[in-house]
Amino acid sequence: MQKELREHIEKIVTLTDEEYGFIMSNFIVKHYKKREFLFREGEDVPYIYFVISGLLMLVYTDDTAKQHIVSFAMEDWWESDNLAYFTQTKATMSLQCLEDTSVLCLPLESYRLLCAELRKMEYFFLQKANAGHIAAQRRILSFLTSNAGERYEQLLKRYPSLYQRVPKTLLASWLGVSRETLSRLWRTS
Amino acid sequence: MQKELREHIEKIVTLTDEEYGFIMSNFIVKHYKKREFLFREGEDVPYIYFVISGLLMLVYTDDTAKQHIVSFAMEDWWESDNLAYFTQTKATMSLQCLEDTSVLCLPLESYRLLCAELRKMEYFFLQKANAGHIAAQRRILSFLTSNAGERYEQLLKRYPSLYQRVPKTLLASWLGVSRETLSRLWRTS
Repeated sequence: MQKELREHIEKIVTLTDEEYGFIMSNFIVKHYKKREFLFREGEDVPYIYFVISGLLMLVYTDDTAKQHIVSFAMEDWWESDNLAYFTQTKATMSLQCLEDTSVLCLPLESYRLLCAELRKMEYFFLQKANAGHIAAQRRILSFLTSNAGERYEQLLKRYPSLYQRVPKTLLASWLGVSRETLSRLWRTS
Repeated sequence: MQKELREHIEKIVTLTDEEYGFIMSNFIVKHYKKREFLFREGEDVPYIYFVISGLLMLVYTDDTAKQHIVSFAMEDWWESDNLAYFTQTKATMSLQCLEDTSVLCLPLESYRLLCAELRKMEYFFLQKANAGHIAAQRRILSFLTSNAGERYEQLLKRYPSLYQRVPKTLLASWLGVSRETLSRLWRTS
């Protein structure tokens, strides 16, 4: 089952079997059921997660108990509360399964070990970090410039499978619109 | 004048004089006047910029010619249109000086060379990329959860000097509020 990670890494750097064996020895495989939490707000964030199969959502709950969806993560995506993970502080967000989900978990000390021992992995993580930063910049831009209709169009275009897999109420939250507005967008698109 | 970059890098990794000499040989120093553009939308983005002194703003102009401020960058900050820089595509944003500004410019081939030749620099850029990703995640969260008043409070708390240096009309754009709303926030804070 771990071939997914190898294929994912080898899009950026090629690996020998020995190197891949070493990389995998640093990950822990975990399986979660739909609705289970990988971590909750206020808890430690021991891992960064690579999604083998399934679907996760990163959620922030505000003072009025309203939930805000920061991001979704499906197959081949990395997800965590990055601030809490890299600074070893408590989570400000929760990570929850929308489907039964299998993940590869990487502790921070293993992240650092992989970077130190295997130059290729440091290079790989640098590419991923830059890509993550770029994706976040694009989402900031979409908040500044797009209305909900445009964000909805972007979502359908970039991540068509999300529309099939994510409940509409949660899609509306991610877009920052009401459930009713999403229905209207869906009917007119 | 280049001591600023050395002090900045040495917050993360220590350097020998020889290493720092090699690093500096990859940068180009440039000086810009207030209101000058480092690059404009539609142009190539040859560099990532380290600000030695001065103040920059990264701006997106929408279809109706309205300007949206994605970020400000002052001393010790790195700035560019990261998507355009790393993928060598045309800029979707413009980078403009709000004050006379001196920057150190790093071409992409030099970024790659520094990472390949100097392990410490790859590590340094990985830390910076992760920090940039985290900062962008926090700004996304602030759009999802905060009203303009809260974003204004966060701005004053995290970057008090920006309030002194940035024209109020531009601060309002960054916050996503009208100039009038910003005046009201200022009077009541």
